[in-house]
Amino acid sequence: MTQSDHTAAVSSPSRSPSKSKSKPVYGTPEEFARAIEELRTLFAEGAVTTAKDQLEAHGFSPNAHHPGCPHSVVVYPSSTEDVVKIVNVARKYRMPVIPYSGGTSLEGHFAGWKSGGICIDMSGMDKIIAIHEEDSDLVCQSGVGWMEINETLKEKGIPLFFPLDPGPTATIGGMLSTGCSGTNAVRYGTAKGEWFLNATVVLPSGEVIKTRRRSRKSSAGFDTTKLFIGAEGTLGIVTEVTIRLAPVIPTTVATARFPNVRKASEAVIEILNTGIGIQCIELVDAEFMRATVTAGNPARPYDIADHLFFKLQGATPGALAESVDIVKTIVKKHGGDKFWPAKNNEEAEAVWTDRKNGLYSFLAFAGEGAKVWSTDVCVPISKLPQLVYETQHDIKQTGLWCSVIGHAGDGNFHTCLTFKTDEELAIVRGLVHRMVERALALDGTCTGEHGVGIGKKEFLVEELGAGTVSLMKTIKQAIDPLGIMNPGKVCGILAKKKIRDIEGFF
Amino acid sequence: MTQSDHTAAVSSPSRSPSKSKSKPVYGTPEEFARAIEELRTLFAEGAVTTAKDQLEAHGFSPNAHHPGCPHSVVVYPSSTEDVVKIVNVARKYRMPVIPYSGGTSLEGHFAGWKSGGICIDMSGMDKIIAIHEEDSDLVCQSGVGWMEINETLKEKGIPLFFPLDPGPTATIGGMLSTGCSGTNAVRYGTAKGEWFLNATVVLPSGEVIKTRRRSRKSSAGFDTTKLFIGAEGTLGIVTEVTIRLAPVIPTTVATARFPNVRKASEAVIEILNTGIGIQCIELVDAEFMRATVTAGNPARPYDIADHLFFKLQGATPGALAESVDIVKTIVKKHGGDKFWPAKNNEEAEAVWTDRKNGLYSFLAFAGEGAKVWSTDVCVPISKLPQLVYETQHDIKQTGLWCSVIGHAGDGNFHTCLTFKTDEELAIVRGLVHRMVERALALDGTCTGEHGVGIGKKEFLVEELGAGTVSLMKTIKQAIDPLGIMNPGKVCGILAKKKIRDIEGFF
Repeated sequence: MTQSDHTAAVSSPSRSPSKSKSKPVYGTPEEFARAIEELRTLFAEGAVTTAKDQLEAHGFSPNAHHPGCPHSVVVYPSSTEDVVKIVNVARKYRMPVIPYSGGTSLEGHFAGWKSGGICIDMSGMDKIIAIHEEDSDLVCQSGVGWMEINETLKEKGIPLFFPLDPGPTATIGGMLSTGCSGTNAVRYGTAKGEWFLNATVVLPSGEVIKTRRRSRKSSAGFDTTKLFIGAEGTLGIVTEVTIRLAPVIPTTVATARFPNVRKASEAVIEILNTGIGIQCIELVDAEFMRATVTAGNPARPYDIADHLFFKLQGATPGALAESVDIVKTIVKKHGGDKFWPAKNNEEAEAVWTDRKNGLYSFLAFAGEGAKVWSTDVCVPISKLPQLVYETQHDIKQTGLWCSVIGHAGDGNFHTCLTFKTDEELAIVRGLVHRMVERALALDGTCTGEHGVGIGKKEFLVEELGAGTVSLMKTIKQAIDPLGIMNPGKVCGILAKKKIRDIEGFF
Repeated sequence: MTQSDHTAAVSSPSRSPSKSKSKPVYGTPEEFARAIEELRTLFAEGAVTTAKDQLEAHGFSPNAHHPGCPHSVVVYPSSTEDVVKIVNVARKYRMPVIPYSGGTSLEGHFAGWKSGGICIDMSGMDKIIAIHEEDSDLVCQSGVGWMEINETLKEKGIPLFFPLDPGPTATIGGMLSTGCSGTNAVRYGTAKGEWFLNATVVLPSGEVIKTRRRSRKSSAGFDTTKLFIGAEGTLGIVTEVTIRLAPVIPTTVATARFPNVRKASEAVIEILNTGIGIQCIELVDAEFMRATVTAGNPARPYDIADHLFFKLQGATPGALAESVDIVKTIVKKHGGDKFWPAKNNEEAEAVWTDRKNGLYSFLAFAGEGAKVWSTDVCVPISKLPQLVYETQHDIKQTGLWCSVIGHAGDGNFHTCLTFKTDEELAIVRGLVHRMVERALALDGTCTGEHGVGIGKKEFLVEELGAGTVSLMKTIKQAIDPLGIMNPGKVCGILAKKKIRDIEGFF
């Protein structure tokens, strides 16, 4: 059997762990009402709310176009012990628990459960507990934002930072639980790497575990921290973490124009293999540039063409200048031109802001009433041009407007599809579906950094094989036998069915 | 509750998954005999052996001083399907399965099970299946060695390499299963990072899963690849993997003498925070140098003093030269002297060989009949000097000879304790035990890169807390309900007891 063959060689799986799955049974509406009463006795006034606007704001995402649902109650803990109390009540009344932190997720991660549930809003757990500068690590509660961490370090004059950079208001707990990354991943990897040294987790049993100590390395068995990374709150609630920090290294920014995505991708591969300091390589298409130039108040008069945005690192001015020269040479070799390094830090920041502000430019460009469906897939880097071309062609057929942004150094690519009407939304849904199928056909994944939530559940079995999804379910059931932790997300309950076939699901 | 508090806040763990553990029941000697007969019918002659020397060679490690045990049979598979056949027979007769690959492990990972078992020798599964140069990845069977992979890439003129560098004959499957790293970890991280893109695994059920696709990133749920990293064959047998490769970057080597370990560690922290290209920073003590100078045929006339060995990276000669200058300045600032960069590649290689040949120098220095107990712990980097001092002091009290080697950039430190008699072995055992207790008291781990096997089992509960070990056991039992996969290792069966209290265990 080769690695490309997912379906073969499933030999006599007797006593397979997949045989024993059972469907969770949740409490009755009366039991849920008693649970809410009990929560009110355990927490101060204001920490437990059933205000309609709160229940809805926590159960529907303005960023996701998947079915949402209001929660029954929202609770605001401020400590691990508070979370234990909530989980104990949830277990007692068999009531689902759905964690909510930065609210930036795109695939319906925090949508409410259809028969009701407790939303845990982690925003009160936003304390930085300790900074160990000499060890390059930091201990914090899970509700703190990555930008807040980096600002705190900067204010204190500590030349370290946390390099995972998803959406600006994302928090550490959501980042861990989503398995996030961002533009820095080409240099620093993702949440699934070694940035989370340990996590304190409230398990569905109410038990509190800390997954590991604070040393940078450990081979003391399989690392249970990793179980919770990407689990989207389905295995437990992460309340505290120790994260590793990286030294701040001087950077500069440059842009280059390319005749097409294939040429740009070839340049990316060659640049990465030089080993020079690359912090980010972002691929943007001509439509991105059209929106930026037309509606984005750009730092430069860019051409409407495919571009690469580079953020280069160098410990010294000499190393940085050499890196800029190397990139320039390789860009030219692959047909790129208008290589344009920033003259100074201010210009570098302004140019990078053009890249980061993509979403706002798209919305402004698309006009009043427009919404964006933003989603991502990831493929082996050599397959990126094919994926981009086929997707662009597909979008053109529909007549809709779309921009493509790629974390090109990782083969990770985002589409931002704008729409105004329900009819257009239906077209967008089809486009997203076909984009994922295309990524899977190229040995890729349905999501490089946004997670599964409910939006990508339907693809898990095709992507990972029934055996791997069954293994995930086995672990879910062993850890959360009552099924109370964020039910219906990742591989929960209906993963094998296709969401669009079951309209009445939520 | 703070992160440093492991024992608090275990609140009403009703329906805790830890309640349902049961002890596995294995087959009878007659059943095991039938299993061996059945294996003989399934495999060609020579692929199944019960030759005494083979059973013993696979059940006892010359590198580990823990209880060993011969296996009942050794089988040599050559494909995933072969491993499925073996696991199906094992399950049918409830017979333990113990994987064996490079044989380099130090903590008794492949010791036989007391009542007998099947050893799977993976040496025949040594094929490189595909090299994707553009994607910087490689697909191979798990029995191939990391050095063989790097030699193959070099021979083919592909400027990429696999950066995990444990013992020279270690194989990919053992490296994954041990959660290994090596001298390159300060730059590239460990097996627990993002080097293993996916794994094909034969589960205890006989089912074959592939944990992920080949894209560099994925946030499609929690990554089941990670479950098997560091699991030491207790959850399944890894048969194929896709590994990520890194670009080969020009390097040079330098050494520097330090007045003591504390000063050297301070220099390490400052050097790492500059962001220059550091591939390795190795700390060696005066005793290492004594052995090297006296018995190691050294490349240089080193002083008998604490030293740092540096391997520096630079994409260009200019960047490399700048890095050398920066290191020189920081070394001097922290009281180091005799900073000695290699003049050319040949000298760099010879100096690095002095560091790599430590074990052979120790054995030669210790004289005929000497053996080495090599073990490791890891602490937050700021705690490394205290750990080294206290351990050196402890060793001096015993009158034994020992050298200390640290992967200083990671806080990971190895002792190589030499002994000749059983009495000395008993002293060594006590020293190792106290070293681990010291590391745990400093928020460290019982093993940074060697794994648990049976040698470090007794420390797991103290290190991780009963809740985390219970979670590991819950997962073990859910995936391997019959307990046939490498029983007694990691958190297996007797983890809570102390090996030294149960002499009759093996």
